[in-house]
Amino acid sequence: MGLLRAAGVVYKPVEQLDLGPDSNEIYVEADIKAPRMGGLLAKIFAWILESRIFGALAFYILKRLNRVHKFISNATVEEPPMFVPLHPYVDLDEQEVIEIDSDASPAERVQQAMNCLPLTSENSLDAFKFSCFRRWTIADYSRAYRNGEITPLKIAERFIDAVHESSSRPLSIAFFINYDAEDILRQATESTLRYERGAPISALDGVPIAVKDEIDCSPYPTTGGTKWLHKVRPCTGDACCVARLRSCGAILVGKTNMHELGATPSGINPHYGPPRNPYDPSRISGGSSSGSAAVVCAGLCPAALGVDGGGSVRMPASLSGVVGFKPTFGRIPHSGVLPLNWTVGMVGVLAGTLEDAFIVYAAISGHLPSHEPTTLPPKIHFPLLNSTNPISNIKLAIYGEWFNDCNEEIRLCCSNAVQLLCERYNWKTVEVTIPELEVMRLAHYVTIGSECSTALSSHLENLGRSEFGWDARVVVDIYGAFNSNEYIKAQKLRYRHMQIHNKIFAKADVIVTPTTGMTAYSISKNALKTGKPWSEPTLMHLAFAMQALCITDYRKPKVFYDILGKK
Amino acid sequence: MGLLRAAGVVYKPVEQLDLGPDSNEIYVEADIKAPRMGGLLAKIFAWILESRIFGALAFYILKRLNRVHKFISNATVEEPPMFVPLHPYVDLDEQEVIEIDSDASPAERVQQAMNCLPLTSENSLDAFKFSCFRRWTIADYSRAYRNGEITPLKIAERFIDAVHESSSRPLSIAFFINYDAEDILRQATESTLRYERGAPISALDGVPIAVKDEIDCSPYPTTGGTKWLHKVRPCTGDACCVARLRSCGAILVGKTNMHELGATPSGINPHYGPPRNPYDPSRISGGSSSGSAAVVCAGLCPAALGVDGGGSVRMPASLSGVVGFKPTFGRIPHSGVLPLNWTVGMVGVLAGTLEDAFIVYAAISGHLPSHEPTTLPPKIHFPLLNSTNPISNIKLAIYGEWFNDCNEEIRLCCSNAVQLLCERYNWKTVEVTIPELEVMRLAHYVTIGSECSTALSSHLENLGRSEFGWDARVVVDIYGAFNSNEYIKAQKLRYRHMQIHNKIFAKADVIVTPTTGMTAYSISKNALKTGKPWSEPTLMHLAFAMQALCITDYRKPKVFYDILGKK
Repeated sequence: MGLLRAAGVVYKPVEQLDLGPDSNEIYVEADIKAPRMGGLLAKIFAWILESRIFGALAFYILKRLNRVHKFISNATVEEPPMFVPLHPYVDLDEQEVIEIDSDASPAERVQQAMNCLPLTSENSLDAFKFSCFRRWTIADYSRAYRNGEITPLKIAERFIDAVHESSSRPLSIAFFINYDAEDILRQATESTLRYERGAPISALDGVPIAVKDEIDCSPYPTTGGTKWLHKVRPCTGDACCVARLRSCGAILVGKTNMHELGATPSGINPHYGPPRNPYDPSRISGGSSSGSAAVVCAGLCPAALGVDGGGSVRMPASLSGVVGFKPTFGRIPHSGVLPLNWTVGMVGVLAGTLEDAFIVYAAISGHLPSHEPTTLPPKIHFPLLNSTNPISNIKLAIYGEWFNDCNEEIRLCCSNAVQLLCERYNWKTVEVTIPELEVMRLAHYVTIGSECSTALSSHLENLGRSEFGWDARVVVDIYGAFNSNEYIKAQKLRYRHMQIHNKIFAKADVIVTPTTGMTAYSISKNALKTGKPWSEPTLMHLAFAMQALCITDYRKPKVFYDILGKK
Repeated sequence: MGLLRAAGVVYKPVEQLDLGPDSNEIYVEADIKAPRMGGLLAKIFAWILESRIFGALAFYILKRLNRVHKFISNATVEEPPMFVPLHPYVDLDEQEVIEIDSDASPAERVQQAMNCLPLTSENSLDAFKFSCFRRWTIADYSRAYRNGEITPLKIAERFIDAVHESSSRPLSIAFFINYDAEDILRQATESTLRYERGAPISALDGVPIAVKDEIDCSPYPTTGGTKWLHKVRPCTGDACCVARLRSCGAILVGKTNMHELGATPSGINPHYGPPRNPYDPSRISGGSSSGSAAVVCAGLCPAALGVDGGGSVRMPASLSGVVGFKPTFGRIPHSGVLPLNWTVGMVGVLAGTLEDAFIVYAAISGHLPSHEPTTLPPKIHFPLLNSTNPISNIKLAIYGEWFNDCNEEIRLCCSNAVQLLCERYNWKTVEVTIPELEVMRLAHYVTIGSECSTALSSHLENLGRSEFGWDARVVVDIYGAFNSNEYIKAQKLRYRHMQIHNKIFAKADVIVTPTTGMTAYSISKNALKTGKPWSEPTLMHLAFAMQALCITDYRKPKVFYDILGKK
């Protein structure tokens, strides 16, 4: 009866861990033991989990098989719990940065970010002669508006046409859950008037930006990808990050599609349809911020907001060939974002280029409203991307077994990128071992699951599960299966991994790893109806990179709208 | 089948709560539904709780009857969770305080605290002519040593004699779990030499101070009141707070008795015997820091350390007629204290006078070691107790229904104390309503229970419950019964109550309430063997006072050792 009793791991002190390349620490591959299914089987599985007696047994077996008992529930962890991953401010004495006044307005911060960017030699749209495909950037929009080559109103009209076309047959791509042509045209008209008066608010004025439907944005409801959440939690105004974009003059063009409640990284939504990958509409764009990744990929807007609790910005960005940025915890106000989890979720940015991710981050980050009990605002530093001195002596930490635990094409692509960086800038790689990655994955799962389950618990009492898609329903059932011991142990492991990562970062400046272990997979017919209850293991277990290396795809997507360029 | 489904409370926004005297908010008395028992019944109850099937049912019924489902599990709480009760530093512009250098050593801080005390006119032991009973203070010891009236060595000898006498028949009081005469004499000899050289380290040099057996102190094991914990967790040196006292020259006189694992506030220990109340040895001294309260009460030392997670310093202090002080979270380093809970437990001080509590707090508080991930150290302010200007305009918040929910004699005594304060200093009382106190009590129980259960879980796996006293065993069983939803909801309620209390503190400077609702009760014969599995409700539910009003008893205890005075 091996099922009856799982001995817990006794973790050794962090100072005894060997983090070097020849460490004895074993790389444990993610090995998710769960039935793979869709359709009727998924429904039967949900029924079992929701039955009081069979459910308790099923959860016990799932936890046992997935090593939750071994690595978490029964483990001995000496570290204290770290509930909130606050980073104390450390004066790093960084190269090529400038300090920003923390009281600056969003528009002022956008201007300061623009000042950090390299000047492009082009000064009109016609001057653009691309040797290869690239997306229009915020600077392109801003320049075209200022030069009078096009107006925000014209862009809005083209945007609305493009969304209409893409959502109709034959493409049938569900980029958005909600968008309101009238509201978009109103914003565009106001922006156009500002340019006519010669008084745009910032470089973001008139730039279309989309918002994941997990973030409040007037005049839309916030569905979280569900059919019901907006009914029990009405949206009463812009989230803080959206209000900041609006104050910069950005045109908020609607609420992007997402996986229901962000429950899995496939990004497929059974209620609103799949966003589809613009590179190949038969494939997923990745989730949960699937719509935000897809609209940027398809050229509908240069940037979009997402929310990332366990890779939900980084994974779709990676699978859709755009930049995905999850900022450090506490850097962006969380008010007005669905409270699905409190200690892992963070607003992030999806953009066509790193520069645009930076500009949007500059607009939405900064001083938290006083009612958020999280952190003291650190000094703000912006990178001087226009510097002619490349940063020297960067050390890239690589954990070979983890780095290479992916498809061959990804391994080659990422290895080449690292090699290129090292040759181009004379940077060095450092071989390291990051122990207990699988433990970290499980601890993260317990944390995000417990918090999401708690956030939904009062609604679940009144709702009945029939309102859910079957995949989200199974995930929410499992999310509710952890006890307080498991939750607190996971926080103890979070503290432990902060220590381990601090030791890694004493050896290197950045940890480099592929963001996902595979490229975008095909959307199956079953999944369109029931969703996809189980994430591909490699997809999830590689999502924990502290700073993902984003490989930009320079091919043109099959579905691409040249909103700014076409005449 | 009223048992099957408990509707959850929907808490209204804090800004809609009326906190004034005529509020509609109803005072809900604590109403603990649980079998009261000792002996065989307690054992049977423990067996039921530990059975997989009957246990799950018993926990369900207990949670249901005790309104955990209604107030926590199924409740709708809009607030975000507050896991760690950190108070941001607020510059209060307080009256009659001095700012202390946060880098000062413990001995320097003790000197600065002494400078804040009023000068006493007496300058020798013989000058003391008490009109009523009082205990010797740290200043008395310090003065007697400096004047050569007595030596630390002589005090140590008297102390050892007194402990020997009190622990033998007929008194049989178990003040200490461990004390080592040789170690005490060694420390006293060193201190005596320092005075002979005219170089005492601080006012604490040679002063006997006892330490609750939940705090590491060489050369003793740290039992936590158990028969086993020190075997699986060896004590490897002084806790930070103990090391600070030692660095001031204090004589650490042994490890005081406590309730097993601090599990209930009776303070009775089935393994080491009851500490007994020096005012009436047939009664409890209160817990869980029962020994620390009793040794101060009995005159064995002017101060002792305790640990307070849910009243464990304040309650025994109150029941034993001494001062009990639980500092704000994060003010005293927690390293070297048994990690039984992380977000509610705090080292506290028991002392004969407020001045002595202040001196010991000065020694042990301050700058946290860098590995504690808690808080930025605030500016340190000490009160100028020697000021001739009493603080003006103090407003005392009183919630009448809560204040009066106690025995008649306590109500009278506390009302008189408040009246006295108001007449003497021209302070005012403010009638307030503090809503949801019973919810706060339950949320605290879920929090301390979940954390304690997690702390012990890996030991429990290996140990077998037979090592426990029956009362601690029942408590630990119940502690393990909460799920992650209940734990996180409790943290959401913590945030809510922080907001409520901030609003109360906008109206008043301090909340005044009796510390306990009853005086010390008799030690029953059953409890001596099995402990007392259920705390008296009024004892526990009044333990949450933000700052307890300590009524000092000026009668002389029946058991009292005049360590310093007798010739």
